[in-house]
Amino acid sequence: MGNFIFSKEEDFSKWYLDIVQKAKLADYGPVKGCMVIMPYGYAIWERIKRILNDNFEKTGHENAYFPLLIPYEFLEKEREHIKGFSPELAVVTTAGGEELSEPLILRPTSETVIWNMYSKWIKSYRDLPVKINQWTNIIRWEKRTRPFLRTTEFLWQEGHTAHETEKEAKEETLFILNLYKRFIEDYLAIPVFCGQKTEMEKFAGAVSTYTLEALMQDKKALQVGTSHYLGLNFAEAFDVKFQNKKGEMDYVFATSWGVSTRLIGALIMVHSDNKGLILPPKIAPIEIIIVPIFKVDNEANKRILEYSTTVFDILKREGFRVEIDKDVKNSPGFRFAAAELKGIPMRIEIGSNDIIMDCVTVARRDKDKNSKYQVSMKELLSKMRCELENMQSELFNRALEFRNLNTKEIIGFKENDYDTFKTYINNHLGFVLSSWCGSEVCEEGIKNDTKATIRCIPEEFQNRSLNNLTCIYCNGVVKYLVLFARSY
Amino acid sequence: MGNFIFSKEEDFSKWYLDIVQKAKLADYGPVKGCMVIMPYGYAIWERIKRILNDNFEKTGHENAYFPLLIPYEFLEKEREHIKGFSPELAVVTTAGGEELSEPLILRPTSETVIWNMYSKWIKSYRDLPVKINQWTNIIRWEKRTRPFLRTTEFLWQEGHTAHETEKEAKEETLFILNLYKRFIEDYLAIPVFCGQKTEMEKFAGAVSTYTLEALMQDKKALQVGTSHYLGLNFAEAFDVKFQNKKGEMDYVFATSWGVSTRLIGALIMVHSDNKGLILPPKIAPIEIIIVPIFKVDNEANKRILEYSTTVFDILKREGFRVEIDKDVKNSPGFRFAAAELKGIPMRIEIGSNDIIMDCVTVARRDKDKNSKYQVSMKELLSKMRCELENMQSELFNRALEFRNLNTKEIIGFKENDYDTFKTYINNHLGFVLSSWCGSEVCEEGIKNDTKATIRCIPEEFQNRSLNNLTCIYCNGVVKYLVLFARSY
Repeated sequence: MGNFIFSKEEDFSKWYLDIVQKAKLADYGPVKGCMVIMPYGYAIWERIKRILNDNFEKTGHENAYFPLLIPYEFLEKEREHIKGFSPELAVVTTAGGEELSEPLILRPTSETVIWNMYSKWIKSYRDLPVKINQWTNIIRWEKRTRPFLRTTEFLWQEGHTAHETEKEAKEETLFILNLYKRFIEDYLAIPVFCGQKTEMEKFAGAVSTYTLEALMQDKKALQVGTSHYLGLNFAEAFDVKFQNKKGEMDYVFATSWGVSTRLIGALIMVHSDNKGLILPPKIAPIEIIIVPIFKVDNEANKRILEYSTTVFDILKREGFRVEIDKDVKNSPGFRFAAAELKGIPMRIEIGSNDIIMDCVTVARRDKDKNSKYQVSMKELLSKMRCELENMQSELFNRALEFRNLNTKEIIGFKENDYDTFKTYINNHLGFVLSSWCGSEVCEEGIKNDTKATIRCIPEEFQNRSLNNLTCIYCNGVVKYLVLFARSY
Repeated sequence: MGNFIFSKEEDFSKWYLDIVQKAKLADYGPVKGCMVIMPYGYAIWERIKRILNDNFEKTGHENAYFPLLIPYEFLEKEREHIKGFSPELAVVTTAGGEELSEPLILRPTSETVIWNMYSKWIKSYRDLPVKINQWTNIIRWEKRTRPFLRTTEFLWQEGHTAHETEKEAKEETLFILNLYKRFIEDYLAIPVFCGQKTEMEKFAGAVSTYTLEALMQDKKALQVGTSHYLGLNFAEAFDVKFQNKKGEMDYVFATSWGVSTRLIGALIMVHSDNKGLILPPKIAPIEIIIVPIFKVDNEANKRILEYSTTVFDILKREGFRVEIDKDVKNSPGFRFAAAELKGIPMRIEIGSNDIIMDCVTVARRDKDKNSKYQVSMKELLSKMRCELENMQSELFNRALEFRNLNTKEIIGFKENDYDTFKTYINNHLGFVLSSWCGSEVCEEGIKNDTKATIRCIPEEFQNRSLNNLTCIYCNGVVKYLVLFARSY
């Protein structure tokens, strides 16, 4: 037991699970694949919720709540949707002591129940757009599970919007994609590639799916959010028509989009180290922990605690998320390690010497232990602000550098390029930007050879010329530059 | 269609359902008994959540999330618990395309899954107290449902605490009861009687249940929250022991407590009228709506809208929850009615005459339409503050007066008192304070004769002398003064 954690170089997966449990983010529930989100993990989720929710609200989205239980036949109304989700459904067959005449499924996503309601609510162009979001639990029966990354039950938000025109719905899809990108990069300090999914990888029921893809420290990719343009698929399935300005009846265009508790898994796998979690300050439930260094002398301890409380009050009043560690039983070293395990960005140590000097000693979670230094009380506030800001941007830059270092271009020009591609991806992992003809045969072939899939058709490389390039797999005419990676 | 609603005098139940749907609080989902909480209803729930959550947090409670799915056998571990809940369970028998080897139930409440986790987390007195709360959905298969009051799925918070001593756990039970009372009275403006439930009415698995009981305008009672002292029942069922300060192993004492979306039903049934919802200002998502009175003249309309926007900005900056109704198509009368239907506490009308006078016209939702008056811009802020505060306390006082008027004392002294009791309760409804011997035979007898149950043993009457009183039903020795009522 204790706080010893596996090293990530030795076993990345065990390191991950160790952080989840020992930093008390989550624990295994009694049902396979269902996790318990513990208070510290839930506090991170609450910060994610609050920040995203404020953004949704500011841009005219409203929250609501739709039922967990969905008639099975609803899923069958959209052909691709049922095909994609049927292997993962949990089904209620008995309730109130009786067998149900029609089975009910637990929502694996809510398009069907929501579009069923939209068919009642949307009658005229005056009712549009409808921009509704909900924060809920979701059930998908997964074979292999891992806390936060893939669990039978998870928490998420799902936005479901309805629009008059294709143009407006497509704009909403990309608007949300961009809102997610800004949130994930600015708050979680995780750089992402954005782009469209291929037909094979898109959401079951979407016309097109846009994704955000991040690189973990083990060089595997993680999809951290998606935004779908659903076209008329759900409007047709649920017969949602509105009277347009000319008095004619038209189907309604749709989008849906979501991010989930998986983001907490990404935070762990992008930033953390062998001492535990490292949280970007903007998302940390506690930004600063004050650790009074207690002595054997009770009089001295009283002074130290008083001084620490003064520091706490000053920081609290300025709006910092700060706590005092009042543990008198354990050694300072033990208590430093505990704060490091939880990934608290800044530690303030206060001992007798700091009091004499009218100072505090500060240590940043992402720096090595020799870098701690004294700050005068006069400079306390400005220094804290500055360090937290620096840490936020340095974590992002470090992750970006790692991502870029592990994003390799291997683009098809000649016959033997595919060998280079295969060898590289099998030995180095990471993202590989490559050239693809658009055929599913090639996509499948590469997946079989390398276990890598097309993560997305990344926006940021689409203005390049495709002249003289060939599909990395078949040497055929290139349609897109795409990002390959093995992924979670 | 339209906004016409049933009168409550004519049919209270239809009036209630009309307000739910026409004020767009909730709608019926596709599965019987499952409601959709619409954005306006959800906004009320979000205010309830935020205020209660801040209170829980301030008093050292932490949020977490426990799984929806619970092994059936868990419920069987506490004998009374399974007896109480088994008729209401929804059961998942198939998942991921396969029949499950052990059925899983959807949480009807989470004591079992939480105490299963506490058995892993609690080892020593140093781990105590544990004070965890969660905001979740709950499934109970109800035969007769009604939006917000009794639905197959509802949203709630459930607190689950673990303590070293009986004393501490009992104190927590009453502390939360009192926290609920303050919230419900101060924010929802609903007066409540607090007290213990009888053995017959208590929570399945509790040692004792404390309840908050409110009186609706149809003179039926509604239980609006409960707080349970669970003793060692769940600790014993899940073998949750801790090492106490002397080094011995002891069982852990428990409490649980919750309020749900039912509170929204109470808000409707206590305050609202035949024009629609009336919301107490402190809980209203929108406190003030500004209604510009547009004319046919475009130039004038521009000035009116500008002036309205100025008023909006002034109020917004001061932290009021304010909106402008920019509808130019419908008549002022129609727009007033729409704002009234939604129960917005204050309406500010702005027409050309108001601009000339440097005024606005204000109308309070709970006053009759002739009571609207002009307020100079100079007095705008102070007047708004004052009116909102007055409305909050007047709504409470009105509800209290109604409750007191309909709380009758019929206490047993002599043989024929029971006839008086029966006649009264059957004709007048409301609360009846009466004297009871403590026997379930009498409790059942009264229920059969009057459909009234013992809502609680109210705290506020327990210091009265019971000398010379007899049980209203059997004329036996009195044990308690209790409140009877028909209820939802």
